[in-house]
Amino acid sequence: MTENLVYDTYQPTLNELRYTFGGHEPVRGLKPGEVLTLYTEDCFGAAVHGIDDLPSKVCEMPYLNGVTGPFFVAGAEPGDTLAVHFLDIEPARDWGVSATFPHFGALTSTHTTATLQAPLEERVWRYDIDTAARIVRFQARNSDFSIDLPLAPMQGTVGVAPAGGQALSTITSDVHGGNLDTPEIRAGVTLYLPVAVHGALLALGDGHARQGRGEVSGVAVETAMRTTITVDVLKGVTTSTPRIETDDMLMSIGCARPLEDAARTAGADMVAWIAELTGLDTLDAYQLIAQAGDTTVGNVVDPAYTMLAGMPKRLLGGTVIQQGVHDRLRSTPWPPAPGGGAS
Amino acid sequence: MTENLVYDTYQPTLNELRYTFGGHEPVRGLKPGEVLTLYTEDCFGAAVHGIDDLPSKVCEMPYLNGVTGPFFVAGAEPGDTLAVHFLDIEPARDWGVSATFPHFGALTSTHTTATLQAPLEERVWRYDIDTAARIVRFQARNSDFSIDLPLAPMQGTVGVAPAGGQALSTITSDVHGGNLDTPEIRAGVTLYLPVAVHGALLALGDGHARQGRGEVSGVAVETAMRTTITVDVLKGVTTSTPRIETDDMLMSIGCARPLEDAARTAGADMVAWIAELTGLDTLDAYQLIAQAGDTTVGNVVDPAYTMLAGMPKRLLGGTVIQQGVHDRLRSTPWPPAPGGGAS
Amino acid sequence: MTENLVYDTYQPTLNELRYTFGGHEPVRGLKPGEVLTLYTEDCFGAAVHGIDDLPSKVCEMPYLNGVTGPFFVAGAEPGDTLAVHFLDIEPARDWGVSATFPHFGALTSTHTTATLQAPLEERVWRYDIDTAARIVRFQARNSDFSIDLPLAPMQGTVGVAPAGGQALSTITSDVHGGNLDTPEIRAGVTLYLPVAVHGALLALGDGHARQGRGEVSGVAVETAMRTTITVDVLKGVTTSTPRIETDDMLMSIGCARPLEDAARTAGADMVAWIAELTGLDTLDAYQLIAQAGDTTVGNVVDPAYTMLAGMPKRLLGGTVIQQGVHDRLRSTPWPPAPGGGAS
Amino acid sequence: MTENLVYDTYQPTLNELRYTFGGHEPVRGLKPGEVLTLYTEDCFGAAVHGIDDLPSKVCEMPYLNGVTGPFFVAGAEPGDTLAVHFLDIEPARDWGVSATFPHFGALTSTHTTATLQAPLEERVWRYDIDTAARIVRFQARNSDFSIDLPLAPMQGTVGVAPAGGQALSTITSDVHGGNLDTPEIRAGVTLYLPVAVHGALLALGDGHARQGRGEVSGVAVETAMRTTITVDVLKGVTTSTPRIETDDMLMSIGCARPLEDAARTAGADMVAWIAELTGLDTLDAYQLIAQAGDTTVGNVVDPAYTMLAGMPKRLLGGTVIQQGVHDRLRSTPWPPAPGGGAS
Repeated sequence: MTENLVYDTYQPTLNELRYTFGGHEPVRGLKPGEVLTLYTEDCFGAAVHGIDDLPSKVCEMPYLNGVTGPFFVAGAEPGDTLAVHFLDIEPARDWGVSATFPHFGALTSTHTTATLQAPLEERVWRYDIDTAARIVRFQARNSDFSIDLPLAPMQGTVGVAPAGGQALSTITSDVHGGNLDTPEIRAGVTLYLPVAVHGALLALGDGHARQGRGEVSGVAVETAMRTTITVDVLKGVTTSTPRIETDDMLMSIGCARPLEDAARTAGADMVAWIAELTGLDTLDAYQLIAQAGDTTVGNVVDPAYTMLAGMPKRLLGGTVIQQGVHDRLRSTPWPPAPGGGAS
Repeated sequence: MTENLVYDTYQPTLNELRYTFGGHEPVRGLKPGEVLTLYTEDCFGAAVHGIDDLPSKVCEMPYLNGVTGPFFVAGAEPGDTLAVHFLDIEPARDWGVSATFPHFGALTSTHTTATLQAPLEERVWRYDIDTAARIVRFQARNSDFSIDLPLAPMQGTVGVAPAGGQALSTITSDVHGGNLDTPEIRAGVTLYLPVAVHGALLALGDGHARQGRGEVSGVAVETAMRTTITVDVLKGVTTSTPRIETDDMLMSIGCARPLEDAARTAGADMVAWIAELTGLDTLDAYQLIAQAGDTTVGNVVDPAYTMLAGMPKRLLGGTVIQQGVHDRLRSTPWPPAPGGGAS
Repeated sequence: MTENLVYDTYQPTLNELRYTFGGHEPVRGLKPGEVLTLYTEDCFGAAVHGIDDLPSKVCEMPYLNGVTGPFFVAGAEPGDTLAVHFLDIEPARDWGVSATFPHFGALTSTHTTATLQAPLEERVWRYDIDTAARIVRFQARNSDFSIDLPLAPMQGTVGVAPAGGQALSTITSDVHGGNLDTPEIRAGVTLYLPVAVHGALLALGDGHARQGRGEVSGVAVETAMRTTITVDVLKGVTTSTPRIETDDMLMSIGCARPLEDAARTAGADMVAWIAELTGLDTLDAYQLIAQAGDTTVGNVVDPAYTMLAGMPKRLLGGTVIQQGVHDRLRSTPWPPAPGGGAS
Repeated sequence: MTENLVYDTYQPTLNELRYTFGGHEPVRGLKPGEVLTLYTEDCFGAAVHGIDDLPSKVCEMPYLNGVTGPFFVAGAEPGDTLAVHFLDIEPARDWGVSATFPHFGALTSTHTTATLQAPLEERVWRYDIDTAARIVRFQARNSDFSIDLPLAPMQGTVGVAPAGGQALSTITSDVHGGNLDTPEIRAGVTLYLPVAVHGALLALGDGHARQGRGEVSGVAVETAMRTTITVDVLKGVTTSTPRIETDDMLMSIGCARPLEDAARTAGADMVAWIAELTGLDTLDAYQLIAQAGDTTVGNVVDPAYTMLAGMPKRLLGGTVIQQGVHDRLRSTPWPPAPGGGAS
C-alpha cells in the first residue's frame, strides 16, 4: 500500500467554506488510502483576531462553523461506513480565540432554554499557541491571572451529507456526524460515519487547540488547523450513530437533547457493538458496559449535545474490529518519508 | 379586495411531494390575497390503506410526511413575516389511518430515548371519516369496542424554507415551522412564519382528521386533505418562532427538546409579544401570562417537541395585532360566491 | 348517609403549618363521609401583604408552601387509595399576591437550571379579589394597565405521607401528591392518592385565586382559602400516581423532570386505566388516548413538573369508575341545609 | 494531633440500616479527627447472594440502599460545612453482585421515563472479588465469556440530614449528598457536604467494588465495605452543592434531572469556587473552566442524576483551599501504627 501512497493538500478560500452538511457539490475527490492535508478555518471564519472583535459584531449569522469540503469519497455508497482516520491535527496559527457568545453556552440561557434575563457580557479571550512547547496560554481579561494549558488539538466538526436530502447546519450534530465537539477527535483516531449519499461528501472544520470536556462556555480555543486525514470505505457495513476507534478504546457517540438521551443513544449503540464483537447477549453486554465502560461528555452546548459510551478494546477478547481498518490506516506513513510520496 | 379575488387549485402527484423544507424549487407562485385550494397527501404517502399495511413495510424510510409545495410567495423576502391563513381544511377521503410505528411515540423507547427493550407491536387502525356527521370512528383492533370521535381537521406540517441554506426533514420542526403537529392549525386561524429566503417557499402537508393533544402515539388520524389558504406578507416584521392568531387567541410555538425548553421558547416569545402590544414591561407581561395565559402541548413525539404559550386577545386592550392581517384574511369570501371568483 | 352528616371546621395557627409530607403527627382525625371546612394559608405564610414585602426578605427559607394538616383518615391503610373530594374552595381574603422569586420560575435560570446571569428583579403584585363578581384584578406595576381576570379558586398542594419513611418538602410533588399546582384541583373534583402509611396523613394548602396553565412565573395569585373536603377510602385499590376525576374527565398526573417524563408517567398510567375500564388491550388503549385524550400542563416550575393525561369519561362506555366514589362524594349536601348537619 | 488519635469501629445490624437521610436519631457520635472504621452493607441488604436471588423477589421495596449511621458530628451546626475524608474503602466480602432491576437503569424505560414496553429480563451477576490481586471477575450469564476488571472500591451513597425537616430516600441525591453514585468517592478524597441540622447526621452506604462511569445498568458491583473515615467541620463555611477534593482535583457535584441541569448545577458552583479561589471574575472563571475543566458523569440512572465539574488544583495558583482541611485529614495515620491508637 505504501508503494503508491498519494500525499496531497487542499486549502479553501473563505468563500469556499460550507455551512451545511448536504446541499453542496464536492470540491474534490478523495480515494481510500490517499493522504490529504487540508486546512480548516476557525469557527469564526477568521473574523475574530483579538479581544475587540466581538463575534456577534464581526460574524454574519448564521454563518459560523464553516467546514472544508465536501470531499467525494470514491466507492462510498449509501449503506456503507466511512472510516476517517486522523493522522495529524496541528494548529495553522500561533494564536486562537475564545468568547462568550450571547445566549450560547451551558451556563447561560439560550434561544431554547429561553429566559427573560439579560445575556451574559460578550467577551473575547485571545490565546497564544506554542506548538513547540505544546501549550496554550490563558490570560484573564479582568486580572493578571494567566496559566499555561496543554495544547491538545482536535477537530470539532466532522461529518458527511445526511440522508433524505437534508442539509443540516454545521452547528448541530446527528447520525451524520457534524459538530460533535468532543476532544476524542484528535490525531491517531478513526471516526466511523454512515454513508447516506453517493460519495459520502465528507467535510470538516472547527479546530480546537484544546477544550475542556463539555465545552461549557460553548466556545473552545478556536484556531485554524492543518489536518491530515486518510479514509477507507467499509462496504455494506451500516452505522447508526458515529463511532470512534482509538488504539485502546471503542466509543459510540450519541447526539441528542436532553443530555440523557445522548447518553442513551451512545449506550445502546455500544451495547450492540459489544454484543456483536464478543457474542455476549444483550443483557450480558449491558452488564459489562455498566461495570467496565464509561459514559463521557462531549459537549453540553450545541443544538444537539453529545455523549460517548466507551469500552476498552482489551476487554473484548481480541476480535477483529471493523475489518481491522483502524490499524491499517494508523500504519499510514506520516509524515511522509523524505523525497517520497508527494503527488 | 373581493373584486379581484383569484381562486385556484393545486394537486401534486406522489412524485411531487417533498420531504424537506428547503432544498427545492417552487412548484408555483402564490400572490398575497390569492386563494389556493391545495391537496395534501397523508403522512404515509397514501401507502397505508388498511390494517395489513404496516408502515415500516410499505413506506420507504425516511420518506414520510411529504409536503405539498413549495410555493413561491410574491414579495416575501428575508426579514419579513409570512401570514398563512387557513380558510378551510377538509378531508379528501372518507377514511384515515393511524398506527404504532416502531420506536416512535411518547410511550415507547425511540431512536434517541434508546433502550434495550423490544419495540412495541406495529399495528394499524383504520378510521371511517364521515364529513357530513363530522365524526371519525375508532374501532379497536383486539375487541369490539368502538366509539365516535369529533372530526377536527388540521394540518400537522406547515413551514417555509429555513435560513442558512438548510434543508430540514419534514419530520421535525424549528423556527421555520415544519411538523408542528398541534391541533390549533385548523380552519379559521392564521399562522405566522419567518421568511428566510426569497419567496418564502411555503409548503404544507400531514393532514389529521383529528389528534389528541400531545399526539402521544406519534401518529394521528392521518388522511389526505383539501386545504384552502390565502397568504399575506408583513414587510419588515421579524418573527423568531412560529406564532398563531385565532379570533380569540394569540399563541407562540416553541419547538425544542426537552419539553420544558419548548415551553420556555414559547413563553419568552409570548412575553415579548404581550409587552410589545400592551406597553407592559417584561416583568409585568411575565406576570400577566403567568395568571392569564396558558402553556399548551402540541406534540411530545416528534424530533422537536412543540409547546404553545397562549393569551386571550381580549386581555390585551384592543391593540392592532400584526397590522390587522388576521381579520383581513379571515374576511376572505369562502366558499367563493356561486359563479364568481374561479380562476 | 345524609342522616348522620358531620360538618366540622379546622383552622391552624401559623405555627401549626407543616412544610413536609410525612414526618408529622396528625392534627386531627377525618372520617370517610365527614365534611371538613379547613383554612389554608397562602404559600408565603401570610408574610407578603403588599408590593413592598419581597418574599426573599419576609419569608424564612425553606419554609414556604405550608400545609394544613395532616389529617388521620380513619380506615386508610397502605395499599388503599384515598379519595379526596373538594366540595368548595373559596378565598378567605379579598386580596392575593404574586411575585417573581429569585431563581424560581419557567423563564429564569434556577438553582438547577443554573446560569451565571443575574436573577430577575424580585417584584410583588397585589390582586384585589372580588368573590361576588368572581374576578381578580391584575394591576401592572410599571404602567397603568389593569385587567379583570376570572376568579378560579384551586388548591395548589394536596398530598399524603409518602412511603418508606420519607418526609418530602411541600414544594415538590411525587406519587404521594404534593405541590401539583394544576388548575384541575378545584371545587367539584375528586383527587385519588395512594395511601402509604396508617391513616394516610392528608394535608393541603397553597390556594390560588387563579393560575395560568403552567404557572410560568412560579407563583400564582396566592391567597388563603376556606376549603371544604370530604374523603373516602378505596380499600385494596392501589394507585401509582395521583389521579383526578371530574364529572366529565379522568386524569392521571405525572410528576417528574424533564417535562416529557411527567407526560410519559401520566400517559402510561392513563393507558393502564383506560385498559382496565374498557377491556381494551394496551395498544388499543394507547391508540384511543392518542386521538381522544389530552396531554395537559400542570406546572413547569416546581422541583417536579406536573403533566396530566386526560380522557373524557363519555368515551369509556359507562363503566363504574373507582367504585362510583366520585358521584357519591359529589352528592354530599353542600352548603349544609339550614339548621342541619353542624357538628 | 496524632498523639490523641482515636481509632474506633462501628457495625450496624441489618435492622439498624436506615433508608432515609433525615428522620433518624444518631447511632453514635463522631468527633473531628476521630478515625472510624464502619461497615456498610450492600444496596440489597445482603439479600442477593447469587444468580437465583432476584432483587425484586428477595428485597422489600422501597427498602434498598440502606445506609450506616447517622453519626452525630460534634460541633457541626447549620451553615457549616462537613468535610468527610475517606482513609480507606475495602470490600468486606470476596464477592459482589450486580443485576438488571425492572424499570431501573439508563437503557430501559423506568417509572418516570414510562413506556408501554415490557421490562427487561431481571438477571443477577455474581462477581468474585480478589482484594489481593485487586480484581473483580465478570462472568457472562449466557456464554463462557469472562474478564478480570480492576478492583476500584467506592462508596455510592454518602450524605447528611437535609434541611427543612425533610427525610429523603437513600435512593436519590440532592444538596445533602445521598446516592451520588460517582467513582470519585474513593479512598484518599474529601467530600464536602452542607450541614443543615445540629450534628450534621452523616450516614453512608452502597459500596461498589467498581462501577463504570454512568452506572448505566443502574447497579454496580455491589458489596459490603469496611470504610474508614475521619471528619472535620468548617465553621461558617456554607456549601450549596456537594464538593469533592482530591490531591489533584476540585470537583462540584450537581444532582438533578435532566442531565444537563446536573451539569449546569455543578458547572455554576465550580465557576463560583474558582472565582473565589483565584480572584478571577465570573466570566474569566467560566472561560478557564471551559478550556481547562471537565464535565464528568456520575450516574445517569438514579432519581437525581449526578454530574461533576472538575478543575485541576495546579491551575489555581496555590491558594489555600477549604482551610487546608484535605491535606490535614489526608495526613491522618492509616493504617494505625502497631500498638498505637486503638480506643
